[in-house]
Amino acid sequence: MAADIRVLGVDGIPEARAGDDSAQLVIDGLHHSGITLEDNDVVVVTHKLVSKAEDRLVDLRTITPSAFAERLASQYDKDPRQIEVVLQQSTRIVKMDRGVIIAETPHGFICANAAVDASNAPESEHVVLLPIDPDATAQQIRTRLQQETGKQIAVIITDSFGRPWRAGIINIAIGVAGMSPFHDYRGEYDEHGYELRATVIAAADEIASAAELVMGKLDRRPVAVVRGYDYAHSDTASGRELVMDPAKDLFR
Amino acid sequence: MAADIRVLGVDGIPEARAGDDSAQLVIDGLHHSGITLEDNDVVVVTHKLVSKAEDRLVDLRTITPSAFAERLASQYDKDPRQIEVVLQQSTRIVKMDRGVIIAETPHGFICANAAVDASNAPESEHVVLLPIDPDATAQQIRTRLQQETGKQIAVIITDSFGRPWRAGIINIAIGVAGMSPFHDYRGEYDEHGYELRATVIAAADEIASAAELVMGKLDRRPVAVVRGYDYAHSDTASGRELVMDPAKDLFR
Repeated sequence: MAADIRVLGVDGIPEARAGDDSAQLVIDGLHHSGITLEDNDVVVVTHKLVSKAEDRLVDLRTITPSAFAERLASQYDKDPRQIEVVLQQSTRIVKMDRGVIIAETPHGFICANAAVDASNAPESEHVVLLPIDPDATAQQIRTRLQQETGKQIAVIITDSFGRPWRAGIINIAIGVAGMSPFHDYRGEYDEHGYELRATVIAAADEIASAAELVMGKLDRRPVAVVRGYDYAHSDTASGRELVMDPAKDLFR
Repeated sequence: MAADIRVLGVDGIPEARAGDDSAQLVIDGLHHSGITLEDNDVVVVTHKLVSKAEDRLVDLRTITPSAFAERLASQYDKDPRQIEVVLQQSTRIVKMDRGVIIAETPHGFICANAAVDASNAPESEHVVLLPIDPDATAQQIRTRLQQETGKQIAVIITDSFGRPWRAGIINIAIGVAGMSPFHDYRGEYDEHGYELRATVIAAADEIASAAELVMGKLDRRPVAVVRGYDYAHSDTASGRELVMDPAKDLFR
C-alpha cells in the first residue's frame, strides 16, 4: 500500500443537462484542471452529475400524490408530491418518523427519503433521483477514460448518506467499476501471528469519503481523482457488493 | 476548500508499550518519515497505538467469566473470558447474534464486541480496549505537536467499525481535538438558491476513512497526516459529537 495518497478536485465541470455524456464531462474537467490520469487512479463522480445527465429529474408538477402521500405530507407539513416520489422510489419502508422516510431503494441501499434530493436540482419544483444502474454508469465512464488514456482506471459513483447511531452524513460508493470495493484481509496474519478473521475494509466507501473532502457541497466540484491507493483490480465489481446481505447483517 | 488533499502515511513507529508517550511516538514517526507538519494538518492516529501506550490491554488469564458469559460462549464456541471483557466494556447490549455482541460503550459508540479487539494485541491471551477518553488523548497529542511545531494542528483518534446495511468496516473518528468534527452547510444555499437544511458532513469520519487508505491493517502504519482540508477550527471539539442523539436518530 502506498504511503502517499492524493485527492485531486476536478474543476470547471458545467452543470450536467439531460442527454449530456457523463464521461465527456469528466474528461473535459480533467483537461480543464490539468490532471493527467495515471494507472490505478480512482475517478470519483458524485451521482448528481450522472443523475442529471441521465435525466433522473422529476418535475413535481407532473406528480399526483396518492392518498397515503397526502396523509403523510399533512402530518409533517411536507410537499405531498415529493413524498409521492419518495414512495415511488422505495421498495421497502424501513422507518418513518418526523416526515423523514428511511427507505430501501431498488438498488438495495437504505437511506433517507430513498435518496430523493431536492437540493442541487437545476430547476425549482424538481427533485433528483439516483441513477437507475450506478454500476453501469461507472463502467461506461471507466471504459471511456481507459480508451482515452490507455491507463487502468477505476470509477466510483457516490452519494452522501446518513447512518444509524452517528451524526452527520458521509459520502459512500453506490456504483463501482474496475476495482473490488473491498480490501480483504481475511486469512492474513497480523504482526503477532493473529489471523484476521473478520477484517474486510469497505475501501470504496473510504475512497468516496476521501473524495468528498475535496468535492464539498457548494463548490460545483462533482469529480475527484484519488491517486496512490493500491486497490484490487476487478472487471466484475459492483457497488451492490457493499449492500450487506440481510441474513448476515448483525447490526440490522 | 482546497482542491488537492494529501494523505501521508507515517512509517517507522515501533509498537507502543504501556507507559509510552503517544505524542512522542508520533513526533518520532514524523521525523523518521521526513514529514514536517504544516498549519491545519490533521494528524490521524489509530486507537491501537494509544490504547497500548495507555495500557488498555487485558490479560485474559486474569478474567473470571460470569455465568452469563459462560453461557453465551458455549452457545457460540467462543472464549468466555473474552465475552466477559466485552460485557464489562458494555453499557448496553443493542443486539446479540451468532456470537457477536453489538454493544454501546461508555463513550456512546455502538459497535461489534464493544470494540474489544483480539487482533493486534502484542501478546497472545490479551485483548485491546478502547482508550478511556479518546478526546483527551487527541488533545494531549495535539498540544505536544503544536508546542513542537508552532503550527495549528488537529488530531483524530480512529477505530474501524462495522455498520448496519453495508458490508465491510470503515475507519471512523472516536476522538477529536482542534477541529469541528463537522462541515456544516446548514443555512447556506446551493447554486440554484435552494437552502441546504440538513446537510452536515461528518468531516472527521471522512478524514478517518481517508487516513485508513494509507494506514492499512498489516503495515504497522498507525499514523497518517491529512493535509489540505479546510476544517473549522475548534478548541472544544469532541468525538462524542459524532454520536447521534438517540432522540434525533431516525435510523435507530
